[in-house]
Amino acid sequence: MTNRTWQGRVFIGVSLDGYIARPDGGIDWLTDPPALGRDHQEVASTEPAIEWETFYPEVGHLVMGRGTYEKVLTFDDWPYRDKQVIVLSTTLADTDDRVRVARSLTEALDRLEAGRASQVYVDGGRVVQAFLAAGLVDEITIGTAPVLIGAGRPLFGNMDHDVHLELRASHVSASGMVHTTYRVVPTPPVASTSVGASGDA
Amino acid sequence: MTNRTWQGRVFIGVSLDGYIARPDGGIDWLTDPPALGRDHQEVASTEPAIEWETFYPEVGHLVMGRGTYEKVLTFDDWPYRDKQVIVLSTTLADTDDRVRVARSLTEALDRLEAGRASQVYVDGGRVVQAFLAAGLVDEITIGTAPVLIGAGRPLFGNMDHDVHLELRASHVSASGMVHTTYRVVPTPPVASTSVGASGDA
Repeated sequence: MTNRTWQGRVFIGVSLDGYIARPDGGIDWLTDPPALGRDHQEVASTEPAIEWETFYPEVGHLVMGRGTYEKVLTFDDWPYRDKQVIVLSTTLADTDDRVRVARSLTEALDRLEAGRASQVYVDGGRVVQAFLAAGLVDEITIGTAPVLIGAGRPLFGNMDHDVHLELRASHVSASGMVHTTYRVVPTPPVASTSVGASGDA
Repeated sequence: MTNRTWQGRVFIGVSLDGYIARPDGGIDWLTDPPALGRDHQEVASTEPAIEWETFYPEVGHLVMGRGTYEKVLTFDDWPYRDKQVIVLSTTLADTDDRVRVARSLTEALDRLEAGRASQVYVDGGRVVQAFLAAGLVDEITIGTAPVLIGAGRPLFGNMDHDVHLELRASHVSASGMVHTTYRVVPTPPVASTSVGASGDA
């Protein structure tokens, strides 16, 4: 961790109740919300959150889970031609030349190291959770959609420690989404803090 | 529902991962966040979310669950002297003159009706969930704290239908909290929509 040379960055859409997809993986609520005559208030802000057009060209590597990978396969085109894509999965067959399959977080990190990664796009619920728990996320940009979907795949998961964030920017788009960018405040690894931190053990 | 004469309003703080309290009920992460040298970006906005100083005087009734009630009992003073407070609980002993205990949602609604409620402050995770599922929430103001606490009592729960929201306002406070006010888009009750909506049954 201490020698990590790359930045882990999250850029993701969630429902207000914290889901990135319905139980069946559907993201219609995000991509195709019903209009319902909703009239979202226009809210300008002085400090806009990071937007896709800025974010995407900056990342050279992507790490995603099998769920996200299989969702991307349903799109018309493979959207990541110019990126190094690592799929973290213990079960996925390693037959797609466009991606490298990593069987463990350690293997994914080795690949990032070998690939001289600089900016890493960390995508999908379980991968975000694993990277967050391991202290490998530096920045989180969340777009919160104005809907409760009631069930689905959560963005965040259980952790045994707090992760503190620093708000960097926030703005609202015309579709009623609230976009916010946070910097993750680095937490010293618990093990190395407890060893040597007190001299009277 | 159709004859409801009052507005259900939610005003609540959550962690970015959607919890209103730690597993033991603790809200230190909300009330007493560590400074950690965090330098939150100042983000001005043209349309500030509803603030407590505006919200609180407008509500005449509160409905809360036992968890929230017991949390409030730990405060130095009873904060709701000038409000009608209904505690929704099947188990709580009815011995506190400052509140009325309702054993069911129906009983709580009857009390609101009898009390000629106008603006109702709906508080606590399970009560918010029950009111939302029953279409009894009109407005949600959420303050999202810049922290992931990893486990706890969730604000939102499972629902079998989407709830659509209209963004009314959003702003950021100096502590890095993102405040957002939504209007709940009324959903026609499923049962009455399916009856009579199609003539060929």
